[in-house]
Amino acid sequence: MQDFSDSVAATPLRIGVAGLGNVGATLVRILQKDGVELTKKLGRQIVVTAVAARSRSRDRGIDIAGLEWFDDPVALAKSDGIDLFVELIGGEDGPAFAAVKAALEMGRPVVTANKALLAKHGVALARMAEESGAQLGFEAAVAGGIPVIKTLREGLGSARIARVYGIMNGTCNYILTRMGQEDISFAECLKDAQALGYAEADPSFDVDGFDTAHKLSILATLCFGYEIAPDKIHVEGISKITQADIKVAADLGYKIKLLGMAQRYEDGIEQRVHPTFVPKGSAVAGVDGVMNAVALETDHVHELLLAGPGAGGPPTASSVLSDILDIARGTRVPPLGVPSQELLPYKQAPLRAHDGGFYIRLNAKDVPGALAAIAARMGERGISIESVIQRPDLHVKANAADGQPTRTVVLLTQQTLETTVRESLAQIAADGFIVGEPQLIRIELL
Amino acid sequence: MQDFSDSVAATPLRIGVAGLGNVGATLVRILQKDGVELTKKLGRQIVVTAVAARSRSRDRGIDIAGLEWFDDPVALAKSDGIDLFVELIGGEDGPAFAAVKAALEMGRPVVTANKALLAKHGVALARMAEESGAQLGFEAAVAGGIPVIKTLREGLGSARIARVYGIMNGTCNYILTRMGQEDISFAECLKDAQALGYAEADPSFDVDGFDTAHKLSILATLCFGYEIAPDKIHVEGISKITQADIKVAADLGYKIKLLGMAQRYEDGIEQRVHPTFVPKGSAVAGVDGVMNAVALETDHVHELLLAGPGAGGPPTASSVLSDILDIARGTRVPPLGVPSQELLPYKQAPLRAHDGGFYIRLNAKDVPGALAAIAARMGERGISIESVIQRPDLHVKANAADGQPTRTVVLLTQQTLETTVRESLAQIAADGFIVGEPQLIRIELL
Repeated sequence: MQDFSDSVAATPLRIGVAGLGNVGATLVRILQKDGVELTKKLGRQIVVTAVAARSRSRDRGIDIAGLEWFDDPVALAKSDGIDLFVELIGGEDGPAFAAVKAALEMGRPVVTANKALLAKHGVALARMAEESGAQLGFEAAVAGGIPVIKTLREGLGSARIARVYGIMNGTCNYILTRMGQEDISFAECLKDAQALGYAEADPSFDVDGFDTAHKLSILATLCFGYEIAPDKIHVEGISKITQADIKVAADLGYKIKLLGMAQRYEDGIEQRVHPTFVPKGSAVAGVDGVMNAVALETDHVHELLLAGPGAGGPPTASSVLSDILDIARGTRVPPLGVPSQELLPYKQAPLRAHDGGFYIRLNAKDVPGALAAIAARMGERGISIESVIQRPDLHVKANAADGQPTRTVVLLTQQTLETTVRESLAQIAADGFIVGEPQLIRIELL
Repeated sequence: MQDFSDSVAATPLRIGVAGLGNVGATLVRILQKDGVELTKKLGRQIVVTAVAARSRSRDRGIDIAGLEWFDDPVALAKSDGIDLFVELIGGEDGPAFAAVKAALEMGRPVVTANKALLAKHGVALARMAEESGAQLGFEAAVAGGIPVIKTLREGLGSARIARVYGIMNGTCNYILTRMGQEDISFAECLKDAQALGYAEADPSFDVDGFDTAHKLSILATLCFGYEIAPDKIHVEGISKITQADIKVAADLGYKIKLLGMAQRYEDGIEQRVHPTFVPKGSAVAGVDGVMNAVALETDHVHELLLAGPGAGGPPTASSVLSDILDIARGTRVPPLGVPSQELLPYKQAPLRAHDGGFYIRLNAKDVPGALAAIAARMGERGISIESVIQRPDLHVKANAADGQPTRTVVLLTQQTLETTVRESLAQIAADGFIVGEPQLIRIELL
């Protein structure tokens, strides 16, 4: 007979949970409610025995009366009363790091949903886990309810990944989806998202793209076997996306999505996070609202797409629980896919051309010859223009210093280098034909 | 230090592969080529040491000179020279079953891509594996390169699945996709699919829906914890789908897909395989050509969609390899998600209404009052008609016995019971207003 149905059955796995926000409280509720069914499935009992949080008295809709209480998550992590430590505190340093470190150093398995912690300390934590023989699970840290970590660590056989990309932030995807459905601005949308609980009071971490960058850096390491490098990512957020951009995208058969994308080249890794024009028929274009999706392009498996809820208490708690179940079963995988001593030092690929061209929106002064001069400047640098759109309904008000009227012009280029486009736009600005900053969005032919 | 990087490292895992078709040959090639990289990742060497196939001399593009050769797969399965047996012979009984049984009974782990074998003998094989302590992997048996078995067995925490559905047969999806792109018949499309190697010489197992049914029955067991019941599935294939059906679907904002769908109700499980109208904006509608997709609707995770290649040597071999790697790492999970003694006896849910209505195409005699009489008959049974379409370009030639001309009429109903629709159509046929068999396709509002 096997482990899962016999020998370990006698000893329940005792869980300590630090952080009782939405995910933590949901996890405790699931384990209290579904304990019998899980025991049947696993052949081993899983029980929450201890918790740590800021406020002991707050009503979380769960019964914590019978659980041991800790004010200090590090004390919980080291407590004799638990076999596995779940970290749901958040934050890249502070008590989350201290507690996870304490548990791993003593060989105690850890499950965390903390992408910031992983992005910053992932390699060090993996090394601690490997040295002490502890497991480290973090399925919930990337794309909440989607089992992408498990797929990358265990599900791909020998398939080599060439590119990974996806929609990994529900707040941004909700805002961009709403802007595509209704004629409202980014600011209005953000307010609604905050009211609905889809965005934080301080939304900058999400809307400026850093949350996506953290998650991307973790996926990139699992995909390519390089050390985690969250600081080597070109990051742009969505706060400058306007209705004009959304409308032109729709008219031309695209949607705008905030994508995180990492690609392996012969000479290193490229990681980018930015708003992107994606074709309407592409798989990621169909992923709307707070849903997330991750696409894996491999040599053997071609493309694999995983789509599902990226956040929320139940999906995230369910991912935390899947890590707990793996640990309860005795599953052992190196936290970052390969043993940490096999990880390669991060190597950034040089900037290069891409296949899809660029969308450029700019405010040209309404003077004769302005458009011709702009087009000529681009031609000088070998940039081919695929479409030019100038329509009254796309007009974005701009205040020229000299009070002159402006016209909004949209250009779509063919394949070219981003540096070339930026140099060309700088020159056009110096010529005095445009007002304000041009909008520049990559087109990806996914 | 952990298992994967230390103690087992010294002993290579010796693999025996029975069946050297496309998948088997690809697997041997991958293991011979990527062995060093896999060893680094796993901390343990994996080597193919023995093979069995029908012809020893056939050129498969791999070097089998150094491998032990077996004419009899059962002898290979029992051989002292292997630690793990891979079955890629195919067929629900015969040598595949005999060899898998022989290996499991002696406690030797088995990996197979054989859905027919699993559908018929899955519960018995799981029981053998649990009794002898052997692992049984079959990731490649359902949706080739998509890690859906792993996701269901290990990736969902305590999420309860309410419904599973998907596109699980690449041959059918290729044919339906081509018919949507070009004005060609099912028969022409099938011929092309055969020429391209996407369909077998005898295509009936695929196009009649039985391959999908086998895969669905395996997924349903992993989702709902009931015994596998491939014979309790309502199965319809795609051979009767015409260009008229495809065109009406497109005009009304749908695509036609062959879906397998299993749903849990209070009073049992419903399993069905049939062509389905799916809304163009739905996730499965975007899955075209030989791609597969499986959607899991859960209480906790809402909907999870996994899409990717459903067949082909490299993706399927990669899934086989992911099972081998799990076994090499010592991962232990009950083959069918829960220990086989916990599986419930299959309970079929009674037929019931569904949300999407029906598409009905029929050939009405071109006589005054025919359409009114048909509509009246439907009204008598409480069937609400949502649309009626009668257009010259949709005309399907039908030969009335009395030589009278006919007109093709398409009706879309609102929600109703399939039995009610069938009873109504039988009565309309008895009235003598229609010629030939009506086409009846479910609409699912996914």
